Amino acid sequence: MKSEFSNILIYGLGLMGASLSLALKKKGIEARVTGVVSSSKSKEKGIALGSADAILTAEEFRSSDAWKNYDFIIFGVPVDLTVKLVSELHADYSGTITDLGSTKKEIVAAVESRFTGPHNYVSSHPMCGSEESGLEFANASLYEGRLCILTSPKNAKPEIKSRLERFWKSVGADTIEIPADDHDSILSYLSHSPHILSSMMADWAANQNIVKRYTDLSPIPLNGGGFRDMTRIAGSNPKMWAAIFGSNREEIFRSLSDFRNRLDVILEKLNPKNVQNPEEWERFMENSRRSRDYILKNQDDSKKR
Amino acid sequence: MKSEFSNILIYGLGLMGASLSLALKKKGIEARVTGVVSSSKSKEKGIALGSADAILTAEEFRSSDAWKNYDFIIFGVPVDLTVKLVSELHADYSGTITDLGSTKKEIVAAVESRFTGPHNYVSSHPMCGSEESGLEFANASLYEGRLCILTSPKNAKPEIKSRLERFWKSVGADTIEIPADDHDSILSYLSHSPHILSSMMADWAANQNIVKRYTDLSPIPLNGGGFRDMTRIAGSNPKMWAAIFGSNREEIFRSLSDFRNRLDVILEKLNPKNVQNPEEWERFMENSRRSRDYILKNQDDSKKR
Repeated sequence: MKSEFSNILIYGLGLMGASLSLALKKKGIEARVTGVVSSSKSKEKGIALGSADAILTAEEFRSSDAWKNYDFIIFGVPVDLTVKLVSELHADYSGTITDLGSTKKEIVAAVESRFTGPHNYVSSHPMCGSEESGLEFANASLYEGRLCILTSPKNAKPEIKSRLERFWKSVGADTIEIPADDHDSILSYLSHSPHILSSMMADWAANQNIVKRYTDLSPIPLNGGGFRDMTRIAGSNPKMWAAIFGSNREEIFRSLSDFRNRLDVILEKLNPKNVQNPEEWERFMENSRRSRDYILKNQDDSKKR
Repeated sequence: MKSEFSNILIYGLGLMGASLSLALKKKGIEARVTGVVSSSKSKEKGIALGSADAILTAEEFRSSDAWKNYDFIIFGVPVDLTVKLVSELHADYSGTITDLGSTKKEIVAAVESRFTGPHNYVSSHPMCGSEESGLEFANASLYEGRLCILTSPKNAKPEIKSRLERFWKSVGADTIEIPADDHDSILSYLSHSPHILSSMMADWAANQNIVKRYTDLSPIPLNGGGFRDMTRIAGSNPKMWAAIFGSNREEIFRSLSDFRNRLDVILEKLNPKNVQNPEEWERFMENSRRSRDYILKNQDDSKKR
């Protein structure tokens, strides 16, 4: 398929960047893809795995000062590094620019401070993270059927958004536009705070003496599938998530404070000092099922669990 | 395979009871299995699906006063109903008795109050629950590779425990013995409180206006895989879980209070008023990964995520 871009730079060939490169190849999109990695070890791996048409280390890229050689730049690095790289872009860069960042306020602020006139940067957030990280876990179908949120900074040229919509559709994703503030608020509920709660749960359980004693004694793990699922994202890529927690700190603080208040209400109901009401727990479980079905847009009401 | 039992009663042919019945057939264990269901509608379903050799409604079973016709009774009903049924057993019942209950203190207390002399009741907790419920979701492999916790009430004859160990191994499960108090404490961390947290998360996210606005606007769900996984057990079988929350209320209160205290520590770190430390978040994610690997007994350290 003919591409609107002929020379794509994916700066940061991690799980998402490398998957995007593979997806472009799989979809037969005719463009040369160059990937930038942090170390020569990753470069070797990427070459062996065919993660991109060309692979450079960040150092090699830097010494070539080569942004202008590409007509599409995609940042696939943690949010803090994306912000830093945005500040280094040339103000007159004529190609299209985006990123895959999980928070938007900081990135959009960096773009608006770098480009004071009309510019070519619209931020992307494809919702397809994973607890895995690194180009060795890349897969060409990662974007298939996923949602990609687009966020336009002030003064972004309108055609850039349309171009990115077409680009994301070409690798199988659907798009929606959400402003930076709303994005960061929503994501604190649907992704960032859940990552903190998941990680907390793993630590909380593993630090109980009674759990430790029998975990050591048991021939197989003591947990059931619920605990396994709820802690799947515990300990996801530490560098990437440290940057997300730092970048969206206020929203995460706000959403987790709300979670704590809700937990206090539940604790009151559980408190052995108070009268208990079994029907209240049934309603609690029924409501939460409806809530989940709502968020996940589960149409299948016929499937009664 | 020759069975130690010739006439098994599974009182409560829900997901776990019906799966056990199917597992016995699949493993070629020669025993007649009778299942008791709550309604005639379930009876029809069970007959159509071949969930057991014979199926009775609770009413039909009750009018036959037939406990003594079976040499192995397995309760597959919620904890509160199990406690009630235990009190109805004849003190001189000579067969083996167990249950599939998710909490143990109440059941063990009921058994010890029913049988003052040596008796044949050892409680079981196969760790293979599901967010699904009902015999239509039964599967013959449910117990394969799972852990079944055995809990002996006072005065249980020693051979009963060995008999149940052999029984659970025959359907593919591994066993460990854990006393009732320890069981209920461990399970509050690894299952009961996680179910509450999962259900809370679904409600918490679904009740945010900003999440609702864009969920309604978006062509596909806004959540990523992490949120989907963390809320999978939200709204699991409301009646069964209401009984578990009631039965293990004190331990759940204790473990969730500890979770709340840990959340307060995290909130202090997130509070925008305080100095932030990105390295602390990296350590937090690294520790939680190790904690999860510990609980799940993940041996595979080579798989770097």
